[in-house]
Amino acid sequence: MDISAVNALSYEDFVNTFGNVVEKCPVITAAVWSRRPFVSLNALEAAISDFIDELPESGKEGILRCHPDLAGRDLQRGTLTRESRQEQAGAGMDALTSGETERMARLNKDYKKRFGFPFVICARMNDKANILRQLSERCQNERAVERARNRGGEEDLPLAPPKSAAH
Amino acid sequence: MDISAVNALSYEDFVNTFGNVVEKCPVITAAVWSRRPFVSLNALEAAISDFIDELPESGKEGILRCHPDLAGRDLQRGTLTRESRQEQAGAGMDALTSGETERMARLNKDYKKRFGFPFVICARMNDKANILRQLSERCQNERAVERARNRGGEEDLPLAPPKSAAH
Repeated sequence: MDISAVNALSYEDFVNTFGNVVEKCPVITAAVWSRRPFVSLNALEAAISDFIDELPESGKEGILRCHPDLAGRDLQRGTLTRESRQEQAGAGMDALTSGETERMARLNKDYKKRFGFPFVICARMNDKANILRQLSERCQNERAVERARNRGGEEDLPLAPPKSAAH
Repeated sequence: MDISAVNALSYEDFVNTFGNVVEKCPVITAAVWSRRPFVSLNALEAAISDFIDELPESGKEGILRCHPDLAGRDLQRGTLTRESRQEQAGAGMDALTSGETERMARLNKDYKKRFGFPFVICARMNDKANILRQLSERCQNERAVERARNRGGEEDLPLAPPKSAAH
């Protein structure tokens, strides 16, 4: 889909196409429609990032809280979005041993209890062993350190590719 | 559920209970969890309103764009939330004649095309005839007038009652 076609979409079609760019937060996509026309898909992604940057801290944490757990209930129940399922599968999260599944569940729970948001990592760029190691180590961090991890760099608020618009 | 029980909820249970207070925007509820403890359920509702008030204009419009059409596809397909279904049924939106259904669809479409967000009205406080009349009249308004209608008073951003927490 080229950018002139994107700019011509009604808000409903725009949200249908890009609503999962921020997982379970279609309201962000719906908000960013106000800022069209976009000069490119990169500019659209930048507008989404800018919108998030301008949210209060609580809003940014709210986005994290909508993110599904790694190897969590949504993956097990098949209720992940397609993008998330592919990402988690790419890191082997759909092929854990029962021991690994149990360990992930315990660590996810500890992490969420300690920080008030879930462990988020770019699964695309990590494998199973690395994810388990990082999750285990990062459960020991201070909250400010973990919030900072989710603010920039490779563990940034994960932006998924849109449904049917190739870059 | 009394307020001390609400304040003790994990963010996941909190979002499961209050996630539909703003239709299809669980991220708002997830954000407001940061502001606990609340002194009452009214204080929680006020925190949600405050969060919305502090959003940029595009964010407020994004919320409106997530709101389902009155007598629209979600009602016909049974994909409305329970709260919304009850509200729409209360105003007779589930019992339109085929002529009325067609008229609603045409007017909803005109309204969305003109303003870039859907027609939102407190269905609980209106009946079918009144809704059709208002929708028809308001399609003629200026955009600024319609945005103002969605900013306060009875057509405020509709806050639904939470799933299992009686006031």
